Amino acid sequence: MGNDLFLRACRGRPVERLPVWMMRQAGRYLPEYRALRRRHDFLTLCKTPSLAAEVTLQPVELVGVDAAIIFADILLPLEAMGAELRFVKGDGPVFPQPVRSSEDAGRLRRPDVESSLGYVFEALRLVRRELAGRVPLIGFAGTPWTLAAYLVEGRGSKHFPHLLAWSHRDAAGLRALLARLAEVTVDYLRGQIDAGAQAIQLFDTWGGLLDPQRFRDVALPSLLAVIDGVGGAVPLIYYSNGTAHLLETLAELPVDVLSVDWRLPLDRVRRITGRRFALQGNLDPTALLTTPERIDAAVRRLIADGAGGPHVVNLGHGILPSTPVANARAFVAAAKAHGRRVESSVHARS
Amino acid sequence: MGNDLFLRACRGRPVERLPVWMMRQAGRYLPEYRALRRRHDFLTLCKTPSLAAEVTLQPVELVGVDAAIIFADILLPLEAMGAELRFVKGDGPVFPQPVRSSEDAGRLRRPDVESSLGYVFEALRLVRRELAGRVPLIGFAGTPWTLAAYLVEGRGSKHFPHLLAWSHRDAAGLRALLARLAEVTVDYLRGQIDAGAQAIQLFDTWGGLLDPQRFRDVALPSLLAVIDGVGGAVPLIYYSNGTAHLLETLAELPVDVLSVDWRLPLDRVRRITGRRFALQGNLDPTALLTTPERIDAAVRRLIADGAGGPHVVNLGHGILPSTPVANARAFVAAAKAHGRRVESSVHARS
Repeated sequence: MGNDLFLRACRGRPVERLPVWMMRQAGRYLPEYRALRRRHDFLTLCKTPSLAAEVTLQPVELVGVDAAIIFADILLPLEAMGAELRFVKGDGPVFPQPVRSSEDAGRLRRPDVESSLGYVFEALRLVRRELAGRVPLIGFAGTPWTLAAYLVEGRGSKHFPHLLAWSHRDAAGLRALLARLAEVTVDYLRGQIDAGAQAIQLFDTWGGLLDPQRFRDVALPSLLAVIDGVGGAVPLIYYSNGTAHLLETLAELPVDVLSVDWRLPLDRVRRITGRRFALQGNLDPTALLTTPERIDAAVRRLIADGAGGPHVVNLGHGILPSTPVANARAFVAAAKAHGRRVESSVHARS
Repeated sequence: MGNDLFLRACRGRPVERLPVWMMRQAGRYLPEYRALRRRHDFLTLCKTPSLAAEVTLQPVELVGVDAAIIFADILLPLEAMGAELRFVKGDGPVFPQPVRSSEDAGRLRRPDVESSLGYVFEALRLVRRELAGRVPLIGFAGTPWTLAAYLVEGRGSKHFPHLLAWSHRDAAGLRALLARLAEVTVDYLRGQIDAGAQAIQLFDTWGGLLDPQRFRDVALPSLLAVIDGVGGAVPLIYYSNGTAHLLETLAELPVDVLSVDWRLPLDRVRRITGRRFALQGNLDPTALLTTPERIDAAVRRLIADGAGGPHVVNLGHGILPSTPVANARAFVAAAKAHGRRVESSVHARS
């Protein structure tokens, strides 16, 4: 492999410079992506391996990131389980028949992932072939809790009242749904690894909705089942958002990398979670709406903040569609420039 | 005054039982409120003192809370400053001409609050007269940061990209806008106190968007200006949401009460912020979508959790419109029942 900085950083091994990539790097901020989207709807892009592969490769070629992440959507496995999924302009993903009870959940099936999600695996194989080792390829899935957030609520929400009310009313029933989601997620991620994914990121976008006790009671068992089911074959990254109140619990997760949002300095996250994780993140994506000069300064501070241990430079949330491409390039360039200098200073100190 | 439990708890003085009220207690979960809204739009309710007073009193009479909170909207002072404000069905509040620069901000005026917001003061006077001391009356305002969130973005948002990008691009310019919002907020809150508000709650719904350093640099100076400008004449409550990562900073606020969301146990908040605050909160509002029995058990746990110091029983966020009124009553009844028992056990321990 040509550039394995990302994989080494995930495992906490020495690197010549810090690797950098961006969540949602294959997406709407790129004119080349928008051009494809004018011809194909979102689900068609996801489900056509050649198109998904093309989109996956765009940021590698156009922005110069150190890792590719397969173009897909966390909700695709729910569709494979039999839940009708639509992407409605302005509203995002919608499940017209949300799952609100154990009876509803009983109608979900455990799909054969090869036949129902094989298009993702095929896209992974295509990308690996195209990359030819230039950079590693990341696969991903939503955590059972975050999948359930959309499936139960039926769409994105500020408060997720149906989901949270279910957690109060019938924690055991909700845990059973999450356990079924975990089974399918394990099948799906194993398929991704077999197809060539060299690392896996778990997205727990809505993990922060729960207080620590309910997080441990309701969401954690299924998350641990996924982590356990995937095993340690490839580095595992856990991303969550708005979970400063859960850090003591997250510190126990048997994953390689914690990917944190922009709210907490990395140095403070390390003090709370200990030193056994690589950290990924966590520049506020709105910092990329400024100028290359400001971005350079922000990345310099970010890298200094992360210098207490292994660090994969990234944003604290997905790159915003309104980001100028020049600014995305400035972010990557700054990480490559300052990531070298700081890394050597870390080595000099140690 | 008949029932001053709330005011005493805010000041950390002894109470026979814990007081209870609910954020958004005057609102859509009440059929009596919905009946009025069928005849008047939201802004008409806010701006007609007799209607605002009627709505303010509904939960006192129908649900039995220990405090009234004036019916108004945090965004009204922005309208008084010259920003056009609309409430659009489904979208919530909208500023058709958002403030995105210091030049835009320059067009905002410092209004005479008596003439532009006098309807709120008149409603406060009416409510005080009607209450005749039965329970205290709370006034409120948004914090400058949270007001700016709506004013800059133009509407509610998941990421508030314009606001946050401004904070990265031109912190001084944004601080200047916040300082102007603070001036008007102080005028407005002094007017509320003169009109009879016996406590003030500051709503910082979007305070949690910022990392600790930017919170201190950008949002905090204007927040302190408001707190300082209002003075200590009445108890001051600071509410914020998703700010677990800011607790060390919030612990320095010169307010009487911290009102916290449902994500952190009160006992843990006390360990981080120290014992000089009364705490308000913090049951997850979705717990009120279950049954009276479950609500009773949840309130019992909440009160045990808060027993380490003064506690105003409340929700961790506004009551949801889909809450059955019987469940809101069950919440209040449980607080009154268990708040007595636990309070005496606190006294027994001390």
